[in-house]
Amino acid sequence: MASPIQQNLEKKNAEYSAQFNKGDLALPPAKHYTVVTCMDARIDPCAAFGIELGDAHVIRNAGGCAKDALRSVVISQQLLGTREILVVKHTDCGMLTFTNDDIRATIKDNLGPAATVELATLDFLPFPEVEQAVRDDLAFFREHTASIRPDTVISGWVYDVKSGKVKSIA
Amino acid sequence: MASPIQQNLEKKNAEYSAQFNKGDLALPPAKHYTVVTCMDARIDPCAAFGIELGDAHVIRNAGGCAKDALRSVVISQQLLGTREILVVKHTDCGMLTFTNDDIRATIKDNLGPAATVELATLDFLPFPEVEQAVRDDLAFFREHTASIRPDTVISGWVYDVKSGKVKSIA
Repeated sequence: MASPIQQNLEKKNAEYSAQFNKGDLALPPAKHYTVVTCMDARIDPCAAFGIELGDAHVIRNAGGCAKDALRSVVISQQLLGTREILVVKHTDCGMLTFTNDDIRATIKDNLGPAATVELATLDFLPFPEVEQAVRDDLAFFREHTASIRPDTVISGWVYDVKSGKVKSIA
Repeated sequence: MASPIQQNLEKKNAEYSAQFNKGDLALPPAKHYTVVTCMDARIDPCAAFGIELGDAHVIRNAGGCAKDALRSVVISQQLLGTREILVVKHTDCGMLTFTNDDIRATIKDNLGPAATVELATLDFLPFPEVEQAVRDDLAFFREHTASIRPDTVISGWVYDVKSGKVKSIA
């Protein structure tokens, strides 16, 4: 028995696929770039950042964190030929609202000892200020990892969830 | 000097934000669900999976891999109240085309010893068959981690990049 969320996926996808005419796109991103952004529900990266279907890899995680995206970025660059990275964080991000100690306490209360042990060494990568977090992620890609192509073009942005506008950070 | 990719972001976002009228959405996803899918350039999750702005977290990584998404899913569930997970992998995925040994050899050739050392213990999470990979990820969320809410509704899907259609797997 499909849940309402699953039924929505099936119904909306049937409408989408009935109109779909982009079945001939190649696997490697046509414009050779990768966007790293947040999983936040208020962001539609394709629409808000002008990404045409087939043009770019889009990596999304809690916070749009560079470190967490490294496996995917290395695959994107080494196997699929991307050469440019855009890091786009956003205003009002959930990552601004907690610390590792806070979420560990929540996990202990809600999920118990097995989850507490399993996640004991995980850095949840929260950050206290968004523009600095963008700069820190750019520094990670540019200076603190040897796993990014040295000729990668890298830029950082903040998306405003109230106005829908992006702002260039660095 | 902005790159052509950066100029495209600024130009397309100016058009998007000029029409934007969803600035009052709340931080927690309104429909309390999380989609885990691939970074592949041929997928537009909001359009193809019927996700309205504000409704769901969207996590994307190379392969739409559950293990790699765990930090984000725990934050999504514990701090932002999501209760359902959809794992959506896809046909013609790059993750079907290599092994850990393959990508390690490529990294050694292209990036040299520092990257080789840095990534020595990283599992790039390739998979040889997509439907089995969906089942394995559902098993990971349902059985092999203690860090997901026990009452989470979890389903698995494969998106066909040629037809634009999703298929239910489990």
